[in-house]
Amino acid sequence: LKSKLPTVGTTIFTVMSKLAAETGAINLSQGFPGFDCSPELVSLVEKYLRNGFNQYAPMTGVPALREALAQKTADQYGVNYDPETEITVTSGATEAIFAAVTAVVRPGDEVLVFEPAYDSYVPAIDLNGGIPVYVTLTPPDYSIDWQAVREKITDKTRLILVNTPHNPSGHVWTTDDLDQLANLIRDRDIWIVSDEVYEHILFDGRIHNSLMTHPELRERTFIIGSFGKTFHITGWKIGYCLAPKELSTEFRKIHQYLTFSTVTPIQYALADYLKNPDHYRQLPDFYQHKRDLFLAGLQGSRFTWKPAEGSFFQTVSYTAITDEPDYDLAIRLTKEIGVASIPVSVFYHQKNDYKILRFCFAKDDAILKEAAERLRKL
Amino acid sequence: LKSKLPTVGTTIFTVMSKLAAETGAINLSQGFPGFDCSPELVSLVEKYLRNGFNQYAPMTGVPALREALAQKTADQYGVNYDPETEITVTSGATEAIFAAVTAVVRPGDEVLVFEPAYDSYVPAIDLNGGIPVYVTLTPPDYSIDWQAVREKITDKTRLILVNTPHNPSGHVWTTDDLDQLANLIRDRDIWIVSDEVYEHILFDGRIHNSLMTHPELRERTFIIGSFGKTFHITGWKIGYCLAPKELSTEFRKIHQYLTFSTVTPIQYALADYLKNPDHYRQLPDFYQHKRDLFLAGLQGSRFTWKPAEGSFFQTVSYTAITDEPDYDLAIRLTKEIGVASIPVSVFYHQKNDYKILRFCFAKDDAILKEAAERLRKL
Ligand SMILES: CSCCC(=O)C(=O)O
Ligand SMILES: CSCCC(=O)C(=O)O
Repeated sequence: LKSKLPTVGTTIFTVMSKLAAETGAINLSQGFPGFDCSPELVSLVEKYLRNGFNQYAPMTGVPALREALAQKTADQYGVNYDPETEITVTSGATEAIFAAVTAVVRPGDEVLVFEPAYDSYVPAIDLNGGIPVYVTLTPPDYSIDWQAVREKITDKTRLILVNTPHNPSGHVWTTDDLDQLANLIRDRDIWIVSDEVYEHILFDGRIHNSLMTHPELRERTFIIGSFGKTFHITGWKIGYCLAPKELSTEFRKIHQYLTFSTVTPIQYALADYLKNPDHYRQLPDFYQHKRDLFLAGLQGSRFTWKPAEGSFFQTVSYTAITDEPDYDLAIRLTKEIGVASIPVSVFYHQKNDYKILRFCFAKDDAILKEAAERLRKL
Repeated sequence: LKSKLPTVGTTIFTVMSKLAAETGAINLSQGFPGFDCSPELVSLVEKYLRNGFNQYAPMTGVPALREALAQKTADQYGVNYDPETEITVTSGATEAIFAAVTAVVRPGDEVLVFEPAYDSYVPAIDLNGGIPVYVTLTPPDYSIDWQAVREKITDKTRLILVNTPHNPSGHVWTTDDLDQLANLIRDRDIWIVSDEVYEHILFDGRIHNSLMTHPELRERTFIIGSFGKTFHITGWKIGYCLAPKELSTEFRKIHQYLTFSTVTPIQYALADYLKNPDHYRQLPDFYQHKRDLFLAGLQGSRFTWKPAEGSFFQTVSYTAITDEPDYDLAIRLTKEIGVASIPVSVFYHQKNDYKILRFCFAKDDAILKEAAERLRKL
């Protein structure tokens, strides 16, 4: 069988989490919380499990959850989406990204990808016969040079993949970035997939500039969200897509044949849980404390960094310590000092090595302290 | 946005289930149990939910579940699959079918589809640029004319989609069918996706001839299974793929970017639950009783039928009653006598109307009696 994804091996997340487990290292590699979700949310799932909500949900998601999402979105961003025609619940943000890319991209279409890029974007483009066109972002800022972006746009550009807050860099978009993007796509047949799974995790008073808040962008964009990242339930695999009706219609045609629908009792539980905004309003403080704790622990080391603006990842530069390739260093640190991280080169298609490691700080404080302590000794 | 699936509308399952809900009709259309799963299974999920099994499962599935599946498969069919390299847990059989088709099919490849065909097969082929080539099965037998199949094979044939027990007809494959298929693909680069989600639901002493039981076929086949259909948990969206290592490697590359992984606490619960084979051994008797009850209720009507050999669907012919199109009749019966069914023409690409309706008998006995009573009056 000839591979359709010949360059794909085991993902770095699987590699590093497995190595961490085997060596007993602290696992700051794969992005998932090291603590549990709220018992209240578990109780809600139990309620629906026990009361017979165990057969197929509607293909688009249970109405109560779509309505709760519409309400949350209106409250938070002042933007309306019709739950009947513009909101679709998916089996995680990964499925939503794949479905949105599949809805738009045909063989020969060009897709703009900002790299470092989350690892599922390019395979989704490849499998649809699209051609990824890269815009490279570099440390320590990872900010976007819009003139460089403009130069990559051609008549074949059909889609742009956006990610803010950005994984792995923690960079977040400004309102100026939104305007720049809107100017760029005006009068062109270009659509946007905006991965906003860290929408609730921004620091130092920053506000999430969702693409939906720009009226022109709203009309062209599939906004991708994740309950996993917001409610510490990455293992429940539930996310969603908000998009104008015309886009949602095509999105749903794909979703219908990818997974059809998503776990019913979890959908009902989240519909209830979403009604209390405190459940996500506390996230910035919660995670900023962890970011700061981790960075305080690195004070006095020869690592250098810019504090993450959002997400639950911190990137650090190690040029002052060693010039080893980042992949080798990540493996070595896991084995020798017991801290697993992600080498950021894996997020570049040509494996650009800027000597940066990514650490996930969605972990208990004691773990973060211990990890920083071990790293400081380097 | 130009549609990539221009002919796809709302699925018949959504249409009929919605109409049934709106009219208060008995819903024998969409295939899901009208009763709940076992409380024991719910308790197991609760146990893992409460004990912090709420973050990402491994991409391939939790080891305990893959091992339990390997054990079950060995016990039941005497066939071995390596849990490490040959078994992958998915977000339902739908995802598994999409992933397997995507792993094999490239633009221009021909894919043999037996129709009537489950509605997700052809969109999966289309989205990968494949060309569906149809072999038409007809009532009342729906058996396969292997000479006709042979004539459809060309140098471009790359995949054959098999479904036994067959939805919607209930037809099941014989060992002769397996031999015929093996003869057909020998010395050719043809792979098989075998949708066996009703593997535990066969009647009148019949045995499920899984494609894995034929050694030559095992090497070429992605076997697709569903916990939803077996344990009355269609809403939990969990299935799996068994395939030789070379095929599983490619399958996993796709799965990784479609959904990455599947709900963690449910996987652990099923690993425990699978250990007791009684949970699925009772299914043939359980469902045969329901099939017979439903058919007994139709005695004295002018419907005609062959009892389903497997699955939880019964097809019936209404040529002696009316010559209305089956779609119109299905709608009319829902509205007028309060019984929703599926018109089988929707499963043929040219909507061949053999005047057949499909009824799902995975419902409580009292419901089945009442539905049959209403239908008998026609
Ligand atoms: C699906 S595993 C990867 C999790 C994640 O978002 C990350 O580590 O970047
Ligand atoms: C995914 S909804 C369809 C359920 C089913 O298998 C059927 O009714 O045929």
